[in-house]
Amino acid sequence: MAGNSFGQLFRITSFGESHGPAIGGVIDGCPSGIEFDMDAIQNDLNRRKPGQSSLVTQRKEPDEVVFFSGIFEGKTTGTPIGFAIHNTNQKSKDYSHIKDSYRPSHADRVYDEKYGIRDYRGGGRSSARETASRVVAGAIAKQMLQPIRIQAYVSAVGPIAMSDDNKEVDFTLIEKNPVRCPDSQKAEEMEAYIREIRKEGNTVGGVVSCVITNVPIGLGEPVFDKLHAQLGKAMLSINAVKGFEYGSGFGGAKLKGSEHNDLFNPDGSTQTNHSGGIQGGISNGMDINFKVAFKPVATIMQTQTTLNKKGEMVEMQGKGRHDPCVVPRAVPIVEAMAALVLADFTLLNRSTRL
Amino acid sequence: MAGNSFGQLFRITSFGESHGPAIGGVIDGCPSGIEFDMDAIQNDLNRRKPGQSSLVTQRKEPDEVVFFSGIFEGKTTGTPIGFAIHNTNQKSKDYSHIKDSYRPSHADRVYDEKYGIRDYRGGGRSSARETASRVVAGAIAKQMLQPIRIQAYVSAVGPIAMSDDNKEVDFTLIEKNPVRCPDSQKAEEMEAYIREIRKEGNTVGGVVSCVITNVPIGLGEPVFDKLHAQLGKAMLSINAVKGFEYGSGFGGAKLKGSEHNDLFNPDGSTQTNHSGGIQGGISNGMDINFKVAFKPVATIMQTQTTLNKKGEMVEMQGKGRHDPCVVPRAVPIVEAMAALVLADFTLLNRSTRL
Amino acid sequence: MAGNSFGQLFRITSFGESHGPAIGGVIDGCPSGIEFDMDAIQNDLNRRKPGQSSLVTQRKEPDEVVFFSGIFEGKTTGTPIGFAIHNTNQKSKDYSHIKDSYRPSHADRVYDEKYGIRDYRGGGRSSARETASRVVAGAIAKQMLQPIRIQAYVSAVGPIAMSDDNKEVDFTLIEKNPVRCPDSQKAEEMEAYIREIRKEGNTVGGVVSCVITNVPIGLGEPVFDKLHAQLGKAMLSINAVKGFEYGSGFGGAKLKGSEHNDLFNPDGSTQTNHSGGIQGGISNGMDINFKVAFKPVATIMQTQTTLNKKGEMVEMQGKGRHDPCVVPRAVPIVEAMAALVLADFTLLNRSTRL
Amino acid sequence: MAGNSFGQLFRITSFGESHGPAIGGVIDGCPSGIEFDMDAIQNDLNRRKPGQSSLVTQRKEPDEVVFFSGIFEGKTTGTPIGFAIHNTNQKSKDYSHIKDSYRPSHADRVYDEKYGIRDYRGGGRSSARETASRVVAGAIAKQMLQPIRIQAYVSAVGPIAMSDDNKEVDFTLIEKNPVRCPDSQKAEEMEAYIREIRKEGNTVGGVVSCVITNVPIGLGEPVFDKLHAQLGKAMLSINAVKGFEYGSGFGGAKLKGSEHNDLFNPDGSTQTNHSGGIQGGISNGMDINFKVAFKPVATIMQTQTTLNKKGEMVEMQGKGRHDPCVVPRAVPIVEAMAALVLADFTLLNRSTRL
Repeated sequence: MAGNSFGQLFRITSFGESHGPAIGGVIDGCPSGIEFDMDAIQNDLNRRKPGQSSLVTQRKEPDEVVFFSGIFEGKTTGTPIGFAIHNTNQKSKDYSHIKDSYRPSHADRVYDEKYGIRDYRGGGRSSARETASRVVAGAIAKQMLQPIRIQAYVSAVGPIAMSDDNKEVDFTLIEKNPVRCPDSQKAEEMEAYIREIRKEGNTVGGVVSCVITNVPIGLGEPVFDKLHAQLGKAMLSINAVKGFEYGSGFGGAKLKGSEHNDLFNPDGSTQTNHSGGIQGGISNGMDINFKVAFKPVATIMQTQTTLNKKGEMVEMQGKGRHDPCVVPRAVPIVEAMAALVLADFTLLNRSTRL
Repeated sequence: MAGNSFGQLFRITSFGESHGPAIGGVIDGCPSGIEFDMDAIQNDLNRRKPGQSSLVTQRKEPDEVVFFSGIFEGKTTGTPIGFAIHNTNQKSKDYSHIKDSYRPSHADRVYDEKYGIRDYRGGGRSSARETASRVVAGAIAKQMLQPIRIQAYVSAVGPIAMSDDNKEVDFTLIEKNPVRCPDSQKAEEMEAYIREIRKEGNTVGGVVSCVITNVPIGLGEPVFDKLHAQLGKAMLSINAVKGFEYGSGFGGAKLKGSEHNDLFNPDGSTQTNHSGGIQGGISNGMDINFKVAFKPVATIMQTQTTLNKKGEMVEMQGKGRHDPCVVPRAVPIVEAMAALVLADFTLLNRSTRL
Repeated sequence: MAGNSFGQLFRITSFGESHGPAIGGVIDGCPSGIEFDMDAIQNDLNRRKPGQSSLVTQRKEPDEVVFFSGIFEGKTTGTPIGFAIHNTNQKSKDYSHIKDSYRPSHADRVYDEKYGIRDYRGGGRSSARETASRVVAGAIAKQMLQPIRIQAYVSAVGPIAMSDDNKEVDFTLIEKNPVRCPDSQKAEEMEAYIREIRKEGNTVGGVVSCVITNVPIGLGEPVFDKLHAQLGKAMLSINAVKGFEYGSGFGGAKLKGSEHNDLFNPDGSTQTNHSGGIQGGISNGMDINFKVAFKPVATIMQTQTTLNKKGEMVEMQGKGRHDPCVVPRAVPIVEAMAALVLADFTLLNRSTRL
Repeated sequence: MAGNSFGQLFRITSFGESHGPAIGGVIDGCPSGIEFDMDAIQNDLNRRKPGQSSLVTQRKEPDEVVFFSGIFEGKTTGTPIGFAIHNTNQKSKDYSHIKDSYRPSHADRVYDEKYGIRDYRGGGRSSARETASRVVAGAIAKQMLQPIRIQAYVSAVGPIAMSDDNKEVDFTLIEKNPVRCPDSQKAEEMEAYIREIRKEGNTVGGVVSCVITNVPIGLGEPVFDKLHAQLGKAMLSINAVKGFEYGSGFGGAKLKGSEHNDLFNPDGSTQTNHSGGIQGGISNGMDINFKVAFKPVATIMQTQTTLNKKGEMVEMQGKGRHDPCVVPRAVPIVEAMAALVLADFTLLNRSTRL
């Protein structure tokens, strides 16, 4: 398997299966001199972890990170930061039923076909547990990026969506409800809907929006490594993501140039922000905004007919403790991946001029 | 500027400004023994080039590619393939008006801010002319990928969209009309709409869809370099792209797991294809399908108020010969980028097993 | 700090300071299906570890490796292999004397200048303890490479050198003496010399030679990533290395073409091997051989005048338990780095042809 | 073929066979704002080109470089610099005799084995003509690196060597004689020896030394990407190179620590420079010095018995116009590769601290 690293200069390399001894990673290229804020890291991990509210999976995973290197006297030293999160609650027997059968819309079958071997315990490497390592690295990137602020929130759960105006978002409301939706009324509807879905033994998808403020002009490389191209890759690399759009997005495809162009103000800012803060792949100083679509979790508590390794059709029912809707827990993951992208481009941008 | 290379093993590195002597690139990592089909390359370039129909810009650019290396006796040798397309129709004076002013929703201002210097002739490096190099490399990748087939088409122009069922697409119809929409009736509506938009001196966005058939199981690396993540990056790196979705996409976020899961057939294929041919970042053998949203071209023939380098607001009117709608010409570019992604993952996949 | 990864497809990323909680790494790109031979890994670690004989440092470090991921039911799964070696014998106080002073011919001062912060406990990241992670990764690479065999040995200690004929090396003798020199008589002289040097409180350099047998034709990429160029980089990246030569090496520069050319045998092998098994950067099927020069360890038990952080000249005497000569312990490190280079080129070579 | 790129941030990608239409490359990551000194570039090309003196091959190749992009109004713009050098003097028929036979100590046979196809005209991609592209990129890197100065010279031809003291080198003498040896008396001996060798129809090896002055502290990344490891790889990637050593080199392996350690002066400089200006992989501000061993050119004008494609032993005699000794022409290539390494580390070093 290739592709367990992300970033060119600020680079996370991650490892680990959901039911092995530990997951973790190495952050290479983190500059020296960053104050190491352990509380901020654990706080982001807590926002991602199971069992945090009655809306998400009730698995108990403390998700405590151990750092092996790269920090000395409270600061990063510039050397690689190795870390691990030990898996303390594997309950491997929960997954014995999938050893020989392929769950629908899971990666089980393609792993067997590609690798000829599969760690069948809980999804192995394709488990979303892997994203905890991203959250650790992202939390450190956030420290480096200050005063840039990255704030994600849930803007849709199934058919229930916030109205489409980023300008009115009050970021202080995001963490006030377990859905992480800053529109309190919509949040209540979403919460009720998720509870209903869970009762059905079903799951539902949703959308996470993200706004990045205080962005300097100049981040991003304008051809293949456009800022939004790398953000898009980052988001699409998160489990269950099906789509990415920034600024005007798919809606922008319906507009005319005269409607879509962002006219300048005398100070260089723009009157509208259909560009989503990015022009030609380079940040233009306006807020960056984008949306990420998540499919419904594939593991449902209803009986499905599926295929086993022998090529037989068999009955299967989801076991274990799964999320009826992942988007509330995906919020810190989206932020983390955005932080990794910006940290990398911030360092790359130092090479732009003589 | 970093980021002028794309791909890890099958890698294109591109160079060139729209109004310099030439654009071009180097393809490194192309395997030896591929039949070199010059006609196929020129055919894809012709599908991209200006002046091909009355719907697109009337600039005259022959877009003839010269190969410097890597081919011997009609086959690739495994050595790097260097090539150039000379710029023969620059008309630099057309662009003198943008030397000191920043076009709205163009990259002019961010280039000045990032680099401190800007080749102001026709957009320089941020010109979509750069994509001709991608088409050359993509055409060679297509040769390597046979029998995999990559077929893109226009599925929406402004508000006019095909119905959302990939299954009924007749690929033989794509090239039958200048819009490159396989739904003949919609194509006529789109064509009429583009003509109307052009008369207004305006532009309009659209959507390109792509379907990839005959895909083997196993392409894609399942964590950061998921197949759809790399496809998303590839598409978002094309000029004017605002969004990417695959399989069920943003619509999938509204569904329940019981609706969205793709149940298996006994042969390992699936009854539905909400997964878009990709499971956990790895191709599952079903058709891959995705959509790419393009914004309206920013250069319009209407007068706009904009900013100049001195910080003054000035009047500006688009000059030159621009596309009222880029999606017909974007079709071969989408295919080329998809081919580059698949070629790279095909080579990477050879390292999967002992 | 960048540059903590080595390899393009078979890639080790390492982390860790000598006196932090642990060192370790992640191996990404290891193919699935390799038998995981824990004994072979520990055996190579034991050949590298301190305290293994009376000739080397008497520090006690068990160097036991813990694997976190990537192995299932005795085989590699293709997913990244995370591992750590906990530091159990730090004795940090031994190093307090170097907190504010710069040891001659050590990296202390350049770290302070480059990073503005330095983990001064025992050399931190620049400690040769980091090479234990390389040995772990290299031992796994060796498993993958079978039947290719990589055998290094000590060919010189200070002024005492084996005669220069690789053909007569009996590899079975290497591990028969603590110096790891296959010439038993020279080994005794070297051993006596090292004991004498230690008594002086001094150190001495040496040379490690390496021979690789059963090499297929075709490994290596012929321009910047020549097989010997990558081997050279690999060796020069080991602590204390000052030079690398392969085949005829520096001696070859004195020869005439008529003396140096390796004439073919009818079977494609060559009558001589001045090429060192590599032609134009590509393995030619003959044995690969190269030599690596190590400087004497900089930490000596004699008093030296040196510089402190305040710019004052101060007296310093080496403390702790250091090696009088590193080459016996460097043998498995040289092998490990060679194995990493060959594993990477073996995978890369799978992309050569259509 | 992979590996036609060198450098991480300042990166050259090269293409071209000796007898195809052109060689050339793309320089990606060159910062904006560098004065573009065409004379300096051509001057370095002239120092490398055939026919420059009676000591080297008498082939006529003007080696004029054409730039396609990345330069505007006399400065680099930060966009990729594409360039080509057209091959004007191929005389392909000179090489027809090697179409089906393998020259001893050339790459002919390994190319056939690795790629299954070979451009047999003059060595194709393995021709040293490829190094002209390196010289172009290196000349631009030199502009960026000022006031760092890189100066290479010939220190040995066959058995004739300068005495081993870098301190006494008068760099102004290097270009005063066709051998490029700054010791005028040795230069005369070398010149006479090369003439004698040529008369024999033979060739001879040699050594190029290089000294880099005005180096700031901090260049190089201290684990796998040590400054000297990357310099070593750079040099070993040049055609015909067999060895690399820096500072005390192989001689240092014979010394004791008490002899080898570089003691500090109060200003942080060192009294000796066995370290060769590099400590722990990082430049320490002292002059960097290293040596590169070149084997004798494999093409000799004497008859040799060799192998053909059918497995038969055949007689072969070198044809064409070849160098009796390459080291005079290798001097600018060594400088170019050193410049590329330093340019890359200079940009990387900007990411070291917050």
